[in-house]
Amino acid sequence: MNIYELDTPALVINLDVLERNLRNMAQHCAELGIALRAHTKSHKTPEIAKMQLASGAQGIVCQKLGDAEVMARAGIDDILITYNIVGKPKLRRLTELARWAKMRVTVDSLEVAEGISAQAKEDRVNIEVLVELDTGGQRTGVQSPQAALELGRRIMDLPGLTLMGLMTYPSHLRAKPFIQETVTLFQNAGLPCPVISGGGTGNEAISKEIGCTETRSGSYVYEGMTRVRDHRDLSPERCPVRVIVTVVSVPTPNRIIVDGGMKTFVAFPPNPYGMIIEYPEARMYAMSVEHGHIDVSQCSHRFRVGEKLSVIPNHAESVTNMHEVMFAMRNNEVEEVWQIRGRGKVQ
Amino acid sequence: MNIYELDTPALVINLDVLERNLRNMAQHCAELGIALRAHTKSHKTPEIAKMQLASGAQGIVCQKLGDAEVMARAGIDDILITYNIVGKPKLRRLTELARWAKMRVTVDSLEVAEGISAQAKEDRVNIEVLVELDTGGQRTGVQSPQAALELGRRIMDLPGLTLMGLMTYPSHLRAKPFIQETVTLFQNAGLPCPVISGGGTGNEAISKEIGCTETRSGSYVYEGMTRVRDHRDLSPERCPVRVIVTVVSVPTPNRIIVDGGMKTFVAFPPNPYGMIIEYPEARMYAMSVEHGHIDVSQCSHRFRVGEKLSVIPNHAESVTNMHEVMFAMRNNEVEEVWQIRGRGKVQ
Repeated sequence: MNIYELDTPALVINLDVLERNLRNMAQHCAELGIALRAHTKSHKTPEIAKMQLASGAQGIVCQKLGDAEVMARAGIDDILITYNIVGKPKLRRLTELARWAKMRVTVDSLEVAEGISAQAKEDRVNIEVLVELDTGGQRTGVQSPQAALELGRRIMDLPGLTLMGLMTYPSHLRAKPFIQETVTLFQNAGLPCPVISGGGTGNEAISKEIGCTETRSGSYVYEGMTRVRDHRDLSPERCPVRVIVTVVSVPTPNRIIVDGGMKTFVAFPPNPYGMIIEYPEARMYAMSVEHGHIDVSQCSHRFRVGEKLSVIPNHAESVTNMHEVMFAMRNNEVEEVWQIRGRGKVQ
Repeated sequence: MNIYELDTPALVINLDVLERNLRNMAQHCAELGIALRAHTKSHKTPEIAKMQLASGAQGIVCQKLGDAEVMARAGIDDILITYNIVGKPKLRRLTELARWAKMRVTVDSLEVAEGISAQAKEDRVNIEVLVELDTGGQRTGVQSPQAALELGRRIMDLPGLTLMGLMTYPSHLRAKPFIQETVTLFQNAGLPCPVISGGGTGNEAISKEIGCTETRSGSYVYEGMTRVRDHRDLSPERCPVRVIVTVVSVPTPNRIIVDGGMKTFVAFPPNPYGMIIEYPEARMYAMSVEHGHIDVSQCSHRFRVGEKLSVIPNHAESVTNMHEVMFAMRNNEVEEVWQIRGRGKVQ
């Protein structure tokens, strides 16, 4: 089936572009000598995760348990969850996963580590642990090398946990002193630190430079080797995702309305909200909940109701989370239909 | 079960507040003498739609076919879809619905009307039609009373369609001349116009004033009688929706991180992104994909990992679309668990 025959809105991914993005990143990391741990939160789709592993990633990383469960059910057995797992229901789900996959998590407080340890002990499983450092991201993470050391020491004493090292996000050069000082403290105290996990597509060389052993990169799948920063970056050669939409109204010669709005695209800045492949001079300047508003005053083409357009969205990750299926295509012909199994998991 | 025992993030709705919002709007419309057609796009939940009908709404309105199908399957049989239905797959779904529910749609072009007519004729059903006017909303809709008349005339000639009148959105006073002129043209031409449908929670009196026979109001369910315009409006007495979240990190005394971010809340402006009922002085100032960042520098309370908080989100409609279930509670005790059956339908 041709992608323009799909009912709309439809989420489509160009396999040639996707495969090139995967290949390029695997090669980039191999050349740098840093392990690639593929972040699956961008796509939430086991088929893509398996392609990432086949192309050289050494494991995956998920941002939440719901994502990890989807990937483990698909047979992936080396999973890092970069999230503080808190509360009995989630701790039970984590130890359940640890029965059939190697599970590693991050922690930034003794409370979180103790919770995981207690559940791991009760369920007789082992969970690998990285101490998360707040090296400037101002989100989660311990605030100093000394705090990392203290938490590392406590983790060593907790049953059911194996201390494996450190994690930070995002990787940038100013994190280097924090990481190096922590590594020295760990070494002097005899704490193991085989893994130092950095992150962020486009930051792989920096991760290597600041001492990381692995990079958690994810959005390269959708954006190529560096982050897409503005509308001019949304080229069909680097961005594989398109949303096929239908023109449902041509109320004036300068404005067309398509059947994808905030609930299809998420109104993710900057404005315009995406790039229309067939008519790059058209501007998707506004979104209602179910309508996309496009300014076509710069287009010579005369649009008609029923016409279909393909839009590269600003933030393919958020868009993926809104859709149930992804149509994998080559040369505009659908080859496979993928369930976005991790889509919309809130827990 | 108490709402603070739910695993998080969890979407909760306060039944006392919900029922009061429904009662107030039904009474408001009754006093105005305008029919209330409840918009279900806010909640996408058949249980709430049925409560709206039981409290005085005379039908429902959906913004897309996927929503209408969910509501029809739940037994609701008077449905307006305020959307140009375009393309064979959707036209077939529309006529299928028309076999067991009274279906009314809006159109703003001959192309859309002809498509619906052809399918209705083929499937031997009847579809009621309103002509949509663009009275200033600059989205869809015909651009002038004369254009409305011409489209109305053509609809009269198309098989399978019954012209029922006019529709506009949003209702405001400057729409009055457009609507009145169109009504006069319809009357002079002998075209039927029993229904004039206006819209927007908070605009009911204006809808009446500009000549509408019904108001399509929806967000009153979540926001009370007028639209919530800023953070100070997010009072627990008027807004029934809360998202229960767990504190997963207290990295500094001034910052806590909770387990709901963009994929739970949608980062819907303005900032802060919601109101924390237990600590109104706390500010949810930023969102990552899976983390909510809260400034607690103004709180005397000392937060701990594992603590649960209830957040009134800025845009409960977008939040609802991210969740699969809604916990209906009274006095913080869960009474019912509702499936958000229309959640995340992109088509």
